[in-house]
Amino acid sequence: MTRPFNFSAGPAAMPLEVLQQAAAEMTDWHGSGMGVMEMSHRGKEFISIYEQAEADVRELLAVPANFKILFMQGGGLAENAIVPLNLSRGGKVDVVVTGSWSEKSYKEAAKYCTPHLAATGADTRFTTLPAAAQWQLSGDAQYVHICTNETIHGVEFHSLPDLQTLGCDAPLVIDFSSHVLSRSVDWSKVGVAFGGAQKNIGPAGVTLVIVREDLLGHALPICPSAFNYKTVADNGSMYNTPPTYSIYMAGLTFQWLKRQGGVAAMEQRNIAKAKLLYDFLDSSSFYSNQVAHDCRSRMNVPFFLADESRNDAFLAGAKAAGLLQLKGHKSVGGMRASIYNAMPIEGVEALIAYMRDFETRLA
Amino acid sequence: MTRPFNFSAGPAAMPLEVLQQAAAEMTDWHGSGMGVMEMSHRGKEFISIYEQAEADVRELLAVPANFKILFMQGGGLAENAIVPLNLSRGGKVDVVVTGSWSEKSYKEAAKYCTPHLAATGADTRFTTLPAAAQWQLSGDAQYVHICTNETIHGVEFHSLPDLQTLGCDAPLVIDFSSHVLSRSVDWSKVGVAFGGAQKNIGPAGVTLVIVREDLLGHALPICPSAFNYKTVADNGSMYNTPPTYSIYMAGLTFQWLKRQGGVAAMEQRNIAKAKLLYDFLDSSSFYSNQVAHDCRSRMNVPFFLADESRNDAFLAGAKAAGLLQLKGHKSVGGMRASIYNAMPIEGVEALIAYMRDFETRLA
Repeated sequence: MTRPFNFSAGPAAMPLEVLQQAAAEMTDWHGSGMGVMEMSHRGKEFISIYEQAEADVRELLAVPANFKILFMQGGGLAENAIVPLNLSRGGKVDVVVTGSWSEKSYKEAAKYCTPHLAATGADTRFTTLPAAAQWQLSGDAQYVHICTNETIHGVEFHSLPDLQTLGCDAPLVIDFSSHVLSRSVDWSKVGVAFGGAQKNIGPAGVTLVIVREDLLGHALPICPSAFNYKTVADNGSMYNTPPTYSIYMAGLTFQWLKRQGGVAAMEQRNIAKAKLLYDFLDSSSFYSNQVAHDCRSRMNVPFFLADESRNDAFLAGAKAAGLLQLKGHKSVGGMRASIYNAMPIEGVEALIAYMRDFETRLA
Repeated sequence: MTRPFNFSAGPAAMPLEVLQQAAAEMTDWHGSGMGVMEMSHRGKEFISIYEQAEADVRELLAVPANFKILFMQGGGLAENAIVPLNLSRGGKVDVVVTGSWSEKSYKEAAKYCTPHLAATGADTRFTTLPAAAQWQLSGDAQYVHICTNETIHGVEFHSLPDLQTLGCDAPLVIDFSSHVLSRSVDWSKVGVAFGGAQKNIGPAGVTLVIVREDLLGHALPICPSAFNYKTVADNGSMYNTPPTYSIYMAGLTFQWLKRQGGVAAMEQRNIAKAKLLYDFLDSSSFYSNQVAHDCRSRMNVPFFLADESRNDAFLAGAKAAGLLQLKGHKSVGGMRASIYNAMPIEGVEALIAYMRDFETRLA
């Protein structure tokens, strides 16, 4: 039987072979007599799993040696507090609001510092990205925060801003939760990148944080020790017990990604998948996507039926056709197809075939 | 082949049938076409898993209706900050230090309030518990913190202090990470209980927090939203994406525990297991445990060889005999046998048989 295609925005579909490997190793990892969940995080078995995962993600994302890779807890949402606790020094920070996630970052930062709204896409209901040249950057911000892929609104930065050419020396903080590992990252432009795992990495409950070394050691005194980047880095992400099984699953996903040809190959597939779906949407008068062409997300594709009274029937038919979790986020409405790394192009083709069929049956 | 017995202090052994069920459901949970890791936390499938887990732990621990059950992230160690962020109001808090874990709680609290050392077992190197009648409680503490089972030092409170009879109206906060679900809890004496999952609940990465409702809503303004008990409670632990798979595994463990007869039956087995091991240690001149009899932990049994030059040989022989992860914590040294719920009495018997044999071979 064919497995259904799962378009969940997150927690999201994982590669089947990753799940199968995890199932096979559940009660006994590599003859150790223990499942991964049962291992001391300080034992040599888990340390080897951890080190492999770290090395693999460093290789996949071409992370330079002067960046630390941390595995933390709390997800992207907790990072909205953890980032200013670590980097703001209680001063001013610039935030570019391009959708729900960066808006949450902007609001949460106010607990620890003075966030400045450098730009917002609110005037187009977050269907465009404000051009970097137009951002009102503070001269004295401790960092500039952007969300490089807005999961809910489906807008994505296809290139990172070069803050230095904008006359800004502050480090760039990117929330790359929902497109991490779907494309390469230009680390010369980045100070900190963070992402919850539950889209392209693995199970919810582990957060990938990649931080330039010179940004460590400036946390506010009120920063909880378990969320102090320097403390976490100095302890190899084992200051507190890390989410060991989630890190193991992330590691299996990293290995799978390497077998797929790495991030560059995956990026080409993601471009092809997204083009297929957007081209179909643009050719249709029955369906539409409202995001500007230059910032459409390759990962999250919100779309609408022209006749929204058909939404429930659309979703019911999709489920019957083996196309799961297509309902849009309540704040945007309509539908959303999340087509992360683990979604094969066959899933996008099946979705389009269903959409054509649904339209035809109503015609 | 017999599975080895795994004495890890945490992450710790899990019931084999829980792991087997998880493996069987890894790629398709109950015909949904999705593994649990792949489900939206807001979909009906995961909500049903969540609600069952919450109801089961409420039943198992007989949690009264005026307590909220939260599933959070960060482990017990992050709670050392999260508790004072939520409860201290920036004032004074009393901490009873009985080992490494409560010592960490005491130190971390100083970031947010004024911790007062109400009592300490340091003078006996944490081999005794200071009697509650001797605690120097502040009249105006916002809460009193104790760690009811010290994983590293192997001391356990066998009854909870009744603060009211000590003339103290403050709520009692208990860190029950390493003995949760091994015994019943007298909730009439408790304000907040928290515990990392990786001993008796499931995989590392989820923290069980049980909080009396009247203690919600007093967080400091600097409390990260994701760690504000009221915010978490108001959103059914889904303010941020919860660690869904870890919650599912916890739920499977709760179901297993119910099949074992619940906490009361498990407590009897834990008493029997601990008695067997301590009686053996006390009868031996080759091995010893140094904790006072009235506060010996049923879960974590540190012990020493009289001749510590034999430690490496003891551990190597144990591993060869299928007895894993017996090395003591570096701060205490020697050995440690953690015998949580998932450890059957046969594991304790096998350990004792090996210990006898090891001694005999050297005689």
